[in-house]
Amino acid sequence: MTRQELFENIKKKKSFLCVGLDTDITKIPQHLLKSEDPIFEFNKQIIDATKDFAVSFKPNMAFYETQGAKGWISLEKTINYINKLSPDLFTIADAKRGDIGNTSKMYAKAFLENLNFDSITVAPYMGEDSVTPFMEYKNKWVILLALTSNSGAHDFQLNEMYSTFEKGIDVNSPLEKGIDVNSPLEKGARGIELYQQVLAKSKSWSTPDNMMYVVGATKAEMLTDIRKIVPESFLLVPGVGAQGGSLEAVAKFGMNKQCGLLVNSSRGIIYASTAENFAEKAREEAMKLQVEMSILLDKFL
Amino acid sequence: MTRQELFENIKKKKSFLCVGLDTDITKIPQHLLKSEDPIFEFNKQIIDATKDFAVSFKPNMAFYETQGAKGWISLEKTINYINKLSPDLFTIADAKRGDIGNTSKMYAKAFLENLNFDSITVAPYMGEDSVTPFMEYKNKWVILLALTSNSGAHDFQLNEMYSTFEKGIDVNSPLEKGIDVNSPLEKGARGIELYQQVLAKSKSWSTPDNMMYVVGATKAEMLTDIRKIVPESFLLVPGVGAQGGSLEAVAKFGMNKQCGLLVNSSRGIIYASTAENFAEKAREEAMKLQVEMSILLDKFL
Repeated sequence: MTRQELFENIKKKKSFLCVGLDTDITKIPQHLLKSEDPIFEFNKQIIDATKDFAVSFKPNMAFYETQGAKGWISLEKTINYINKLSPDLFTIADAKRGDIGNTSKMYAKAFLENLNFDSITVAPYMGEDSVTPFMEYKNKWVILLALTSNSGAHDFQLNEMYSTFEKGIDVNSPLEKGIDVNSPLEKGARGIELYQQVLAKSKSWSTPDNMMYVVGATKAEMLTDIRKIVPESFLLVPGVGAQGGSLEAVAKFGMNKQCGLLVNSSRGIIYASTAENFAEKAREEAMKLQVEMSILLDKFL
Repeated sequence: MTRQELFENIKKKKSFLCVGLDTDITKIPQHLLKSEDPIFEFNKQIIDATKDFAVSFKPNMAFYETQGAKGWISLEKTINYINKLSPDLFTIADAKRGDIGNTSKMYAKAFLENLNFDSITVAPYMGEDSVTPFMEYKNKWVILLALTSNSGAHDFQLNEMYSTFEKGIDVNSPLEKGIDVNSPLEKGARGIELYQQVLAKSKSWSTPDNMMYVVGATKAEMLTDIRKIVPESFLLVPGVGAQGGSLEAVAKFGMNKQCGLLVNSSRGIIYASTAENFAEKAREEAMKLQVEMSILLDKFL
């Protein structure tokens, strides 16, 4: 899917909602456990119930791998179901992969070719050659972890770095529009944080047409700084709903001319109820978010 | 497996070799493709041929996931085969996972409980709560990425950071034995590199009995600095063999009183030949490394 197509789908549905399919066998309604493939059955009903209000679906791999080969089959059925249902649904393999080039290529094949996801989340720690193999597929996307919504984001992502300015990296191109590299360095007191470094440096390997970023919504006010570095890129924002975070603040600080946002909700939608009418309840929660998003699109787009 | 048990196995075999099972269906000998599960058949023959010279086996998940559910079954058979063959073989799921706590827990269950690996490689980018769920299994291990052997290590891992010293982190405990935090900061000219920060900070979440580190061998001289931060920890060193890197330098700069090293070779062993006698050739390559390691253990232990 191209960036323009994603934007068209957002406008059409008046929604930038991504539904996270973090399907935990211990949390799905009891009555589904009788079916042959309870995880797929659950996903199918959730997808059918929420597809009118969501532009994207994001299964998290951990929940499938914990079921072994059977889980992988549930995953295959899920992605095939979504792809068959509509080419307009943007699919995200939330895998947070990343390895040496040779090996990242294998992961890319697994998720973007074999399973035919539109995109995959990738961890940046191993640098450029661990990320670029995922960008070799036309109209497919890397969604690079930048700022995550968990408490551990403070351990490394929010630490400041400075030496890159001295080591011959071209600070002018990715950074010039964003961070004021001169003032903090002249003062000798402030660098840029690791997640900002990830945003800035990855811009030299990618374009806003093949890379998005994960940006945690618990820090909505930071979206202003983030938008200075990556004004055009789509941002995948987790952490609205069960993990807290205000949708209005995300839209206010993060929206760009093509919306530029996919806001994920997992537990708040898929576990809205564990009764037999769970799908209906999920639909109601998805619709609530879509209504709110529709208003925010009118206000900020 | 405990640290002491691993050390006993190293002394018994006079080897600190880990064989990387990066089993690529397009690279294994043609005649195996006739068998029902070529990947498992290849692994089985490699394991049988090299087990006398290796203390550890490390399948990389990417090579299995690229085969879908079938690949997951090959992986299950492989880990079960190793575990049944000998409890003395230290098994590593090279998965480089890491997600929010809730989700990392699922990955931990998948690899350390269901598949019963002794250890899993984990990416540090998301911080403490993404790593600690993997440490809830007794005598199982996290192998945290610190310094990797690919060129992308220069993008973030080798960048210097400084602000943590100002932000109330207890610089005395993990760092005091290692890096001289005073001098670089007083000069205002040098911080510590991100990978050193990962080593230092993760020490406060872990012990040398439940955490090891991935340290790329292409930078053997850096092992001196690394040993100042993590003197007791085991280090998993990739990049000897096909990726280059001197075994002697790794032993010289990296070995501690319990050896403290697992040196991995993948392609150099498993693809030594693609002829029908590939396993015999793999055995020869593994033996060569074991002989060299035996000498290095005598010299540096």
